[in-house]
Amino acid sequence: MQLKDLGEYRLVARICEKLERTFGIDKRVIVGLGDDTAVLDINGTKLVLTIDTQLEDAHFRRRWMPPFELGWKSVAVSVSDVVAMGGKPIAALLGIGLTGEEPVAFVDEFYEGAIALCQSTGILLLGGDTVRSPLGLMFSSVVIGIVEGEPIRRSGAQIGDSIVVTGFVGEASAGFWLLEQDVDFMSSPLLQHCIKRFRQPEPKVNAVQVLRSFPVHAAIDISDGLVIDAQRIANASKVQILLDLTKLPLSDALKEAAKVTGRDPISLALTGGEDYELLLSVPVSVLTEFCQALKAIDITAHPIGEVGAHHDEGQVLGKHDNGTVSLLHGGFQHF
Amino acid sequence: MQLKDLGEYRLVARICEKLERTFGIDKRVIVGLGDDTAVLDINGTKLVLTIDTQLEDAHFRRRWMPPFELGWKSVAVSVSDVVAMGGKPIAALLGIGLTGEEPVAFVDEFYEGAIALCQSTGILLLGGDTVRSPLGLMFSSVVIGIVEGEPIRRSGAQIGDSIVVTGFVGEASAGFWLLEQDVDFMSSPLLQHCIKRFRQPEPKVNAVQVLRSFPVHAAIDISDGLVIDAQRIANASKVQILLDLTKLPLSDALKEAAKVTGRDPISLALTGGEDYELLLSVPVSVLTEFCQALKAIDITAHPIGEVGAHHDEGQVLGKHDNGTVSLLHGGFQHF
Repeated sequence: MQLKDLGEYRLVARICEKLERTFGIDKRVIVGLGDDTAVLDINGTKLVLTIDTQLEDAHFRRRWMPPFELGWKSVAVSVSDVVAMGGKPIAALLGIGLTGEEPVAFVDEFYEGAIALCQSTGILLLGGDTVRSPLGLMFSSVVIGIVEGEPIRRSGAQIGDSIVVTGFVGEASAGFWLLEQDVDFMSSPLLQHCIKRFRQPEPKVNAVQVLRSFPVHAAIDISDGLVIDAQRIANASKVQILLDLTKLPLSDALKEAAKVTGRDPISLALTGGEDYELLLSVPVSVLTEFCQALKAIDITAHPIGEVGAHHDEGQVLGKHDNGTVSLLHGGFQHF
Repeated sequence: MQLKDLGEYRLVARICEKLERTFGIDKRVIVGLGDDTAVLDINGTKLVLTIDTQLEDAHFRRRWMPPFELGWKSVAVSVSDVVAMGGKPIAALLGIGLTGEEPVAFVDEFYEGAIALCQSTGILLLGGDTVRSPLGLMFSSVVIGIVEGEPIRRSGAQIGDSIVVTGFVGEASAGFWLLEQDVDFMSSPLLQHCIKRFRQPEPKVNAVQVLRSFPVHAAIDISDGLVIDAQRIANASKVQILLDLTKLPLSDALKEAAKVTGRDPISLALTGGEDYELLLSVPVSVLTEFCQALKAIDITAHPIGEVGAHHDEGQVLGKHDNGTVSLLHGGFQHF
């Protein structure tokens, strides 16, 4: 059997199981495999570690992304993973592959973008490895951070919890389609907003203080799409998640970009990915206060669903405006 | 100007300078850029971090390396970097890119190799990121470790120091040429040894205790070649290094492989790379005792040179068997 037949879910599960069996018993491993991020006890400090790799023509096309934004986004996606564990990001390393045909200014601007992201999120960029990559650009970013208290896992969602999403979903994906379809976006601030959301995602670093102040049961950052990332929580927590599709936060920017690109805004919001918003499972008892605390630091939080019974574990359902409920699926998978 | 015109040295120097200017002033950064490895103070613990990326057809060809050895080597090269700083490696993350055409057994064997390396060096493999890489295999390994006391830098070599190398250099490179030239190596244990040195390098983790017990002034692991890595010490330390070429440790395996592949064993030893032996600058006063301490843990250490005057800083010279001295150069550069 080939990998493409196995699929990403089963491939990752297979790797995780193998590593868990071998290393999971070590008491220094607080969170091992399965989440995007590992947590390790080092001399009493809970260290969060994550790595993300982006490849030209698999994750991005060069024409979509000026070098500054490539540098920014390379590190941003890993910072976002640390935040989703309730960790405070501290430092980054970058492994980059260049074909050698790039002008020197390309590398300068790439690092300026990476530095700008690090400065805006208060982390240190410690350099890394630079290699020749004849077939295209390659970026691997590593971010380490510290968790005070317990890390927030994907597996902690409890029946009766509210499902909350920060910000507006689908905008990054709308930006992607604008670029893919070569739409002229410069004359429209709404379209420009979607482009910026795709090129320069802003990890929710200042949300960490709020996540630490409430009993957040589960969290994930939306990288591959709302539904697929909700499925990850549902699978890990062995619960069902019911999303109320009438409550999905759809921005004017999303609607405008959807119209221009001929796409359905709800599909973009559900399956688009790359928004790097947070999807959270919180007890109903703290919901109002939790959303207010986020709002106080300029993060809009939208309750969009609830956690349901065990017997359909791993499923994500959507309640439509006509009252019907259907199984949701879709989102980005590598294999 | 394009990167290929700038060259790797100046590219890396340019990146390092930019990052040093921005982040080097932070007092948590103990070793920033310039070494392969960064050292960061986290709650009083000195954390070592390193990342290495290996790309198909840039660093290896698939036909050279069975998946087990690919997995082993991916992590081994980063473990070696941590060791060269005097750090005790603790845990690894792997970012891997697969085309999707690989059989599932390929991934299983790759991870078995990575796990075997981790178990043999006493570190934890915490998983990582798995992406689709349409154009070829890609592996980014991250290793973190802890340094007790001061990290060993490249920049600490002092005039009068002895230059010591562990083990035998050039064997990995000889193995590379055997593979590249499709030599049948199965009938010769000497040739098989070179192949194993190329495919399954063994980072010198147990040397760390000895490195910590002596005033080692500078250290690097030999990844790109003895001369180029000696130049890195010479440049960082602003010294000249004089290698006595009559003292180069040339093994029977190296000589046999050199003969079969029609190459010069001394050139392989000087410029071959990928041995992951340690190159060390130690005070003459402790040289004998230092080599004995390494020998006691089955690591042969060979004094091969000395650190000379400032006025030719950055140079590596070779003293030939006829007494003449010449400037040495050569080794692997990415750009």
